[in-house]
Amino acid sequence: MSKELKNIMLGHGSGGKLSHDLIDSLFAYHFKNEILDQQSDSAIIELNGDKLAYTTDSFVVDPIFFPGGNIGNLAIAGTVNDLAVSGAIPQYISVGFIIEEGFPFSDLEKIVVSMAEDAAEAGVKIVTGDTKVVDKGKCDKVFINTSGIGVLKDSYIHISSGKNITPGDKIIINGSIGDHGMAVMAARNELNIQTHIESDCACLNHMIAGALKESDGIKFMRDATRGGLGTVLSELVNNGNYGISIEEEKLTVHENVRGLCELLGFDPLYVANEGKVVMVVASEDADNVLKVLKESPFGKEASIIGEISSSYDGTAWLETNVGGKRIIDMLSGQQLPRIC
Amino acid sequence: MSKELKNIMLGHGSGGKLSHDLIDSLFAYHFKNEILDQQSDSAIIELNGDKLAYTTDSFVVDPIFFPGGNIGNLAIAGTVNDLAVSGAIPQYISVGFIIEEGFPFSDLEKIVVSMAEDAAEAGVKIVTGDTKVVDKGKCDKVFINTSGIGVLKDSYIHISSGKNITPGDKIIINGSIGDHGMAVMAARNELNIQTHIESDCACLNHMIAGALKESDGIKFMRDATRGGLGTVLSELVNNGNYGISIEEEKLTVHENVRGLCELLGFDPLYVANEGKVVMVVASEDADNVLKVLKESPFGKEASIIGEISSSYDGTAWLETNVGGKRIIDMLSGQQLPRIC
Repeated sequence: MSKELKNIMLGHGSGGKLSHDLIDSLFAYHFKNEILDQQSDSAIIELNGDKLAYTTDSFVVDPIFFPGGNIGNLAIAGTVNDLAVSGAIPQYISVGFIIEEGFPFSDLEKIVVSMAEDAAEAGVKIVTGDTKVVDKGKCDKVFINTSGIGVLKDSYIHISSGKNITPGDKIIINGSIGDHGMAVMAARNELNIQTHIESDCACLNHMIAGALKESDGIKFMRDATRGGLGTVLSELVNNGNYGISIEEEKLTVHENVRGLCELLGFDPLYVANEGKVVMVVASEDADNVLKVLKESPFGKEASIIGEISSSYDGTAWLETNVGGKRIIDMLSGQQLPRIC
Repeated sequence: MSKELKNIMLGHGSGGKLSHDLIDSLFAYHFKNEILDQQSDSAIIELNGDKLAYTTDSFVVDPIFFPGGNIGNLAIAGTVNDLAVSGAIPQYISVGFIIEEGFPFSDLEKIVVSMAEDAAEAGVKIVTGDTKVVDKGKCDKVFINTSGIGVLKDSYIHISSGKNITPGDKIIINGSIGDHGMAVMAARNELNIQTHIESDCACLNHMIAGALKESDGIKFMRDATRGGLGTVLSELVNNGNYGISIEEEKLTVHENVRGLCELLGFDPLYVANEGKVVMVVASEDADNVLKVLKESPFGKEASIIGEISSSYDGTAWLETNVGGKRIIDMLSGQQLPRIC
């Protein structure tokens, strides 16, 4: 960690460069072990000879209710999706609530009902939990942590690391980008924004299982949450001996999302999604996978947005609509705090 | 949940009666499934035919540093102990940090180092994690959630439910009560207390594994954390067709802990511990188990404190030093907020 940084800043929770530095210099350094070193969405662990995926996330979104969902939906979808993108079948979820004294029961119940509904739809069981209450003013309404466990087939273990990726593979995303982040921004009290943007928050495990059933050529998956699509692509090239080329015209950004991004000065590439998976798929399987994704309610706008290339070694490039090219780098600051 | 309670109160996080009501009426009601219904320290789950224990806890202790430990020690010990008292061998831990903007790196590093040391000593690996940062004033310094997974032998599955408990079984605790809660109270800024009380925070898994190796007669275990020994005993009789009789003179309460409890009006029976396990052991095995516990650095003051009785049906009784008897009931309010 850079010596001049003495205190934690919002950017350390952004999922971007500062987060990576904190993880590398502090958490991965002191907690060091061969499983944590993988730094994938889910840890791949072995118990009694079986492979499992195991993951955790805390949710501190502000506001806790927004168009298209609430903090409870995020808490289930976030963990279900982290397991699913590792190629695992999500099975069991733990839930830890930290609640501010005075928080209305009725709001807590709405959140809990949303979690129960999402868990049922995703086919996961919430099997263990914990509740802490802190004095008024010592947390912001409610924070939720979930962890999750899924069963992983041996044949899918390469998906977490993406080690089978080769030039020519296609990059697919299951729809538009930036909806979640802009929905949350628009819902913030201090902004008086009329546009209605809905979060894309969704459990993607059934759609992903369908794609895995269709094709053996899915070589990597990651959900593009904090840090958005840009951060996923940037992390991907950092881990491999290849480049990435993305065609801007293939990216779907809804008009109201684009408008709000322009108004606030955000780049949709780096805005959070909560129902989007980025897949790297063998070229010959890409159309079949795309077809399966489009059959899901969460994949109607799926598209092939680019490919793995050998020419742009170690860099992700965006081929812009106007014929230019720009590097897709890791976010260096904090674009949107408390978005999930 | 009682209709007149419209808002969450500190007591809902106490581990006492209000916590139980909240769990029953909200979480267990909406998340309902046969595993969650067990409501034990760890969920017993099955994956690929193997039995695993799975648990989670959030830690919000105030202050985060106190004599004998810090929030990081609690976060590892709490989860390791929840797995161990289920009879499981703790294996993997997840960690989620929620950090307040401006929190000093140096403090975070101290906490992380404590966690790494405890994990190494307990023989568990921290394999997955998450970091969120919230704006200054939106949480109190740092909150930590841990979840954990352990492997459970089929022959120990009865320990979580205590279904093999019968009258005559002995009740053992591995030492003094009330140290953690009073150490944290004494460390609070608003109190100007000179007495030095150390938290008993410790990972008990190796000591517990030693006891399980010694005896097949361990019928139930629980760590006496929030709500203290009194709450564990009260929960135990609520679940069974027997009573409990505890001899007050067999309980160890250190002099400085007793003094501070008297000063502040607390009952040591209900004060939190973070390194104490309550065991129910077949009468003929009790002395052997006691001997094994006493060999551990965390069990030097272990003692048999009472027994399961058929005469006090459904009630836990304390036989007091002065020859009287009083019921050990569930804590109805909140004795000590943010103690873990």
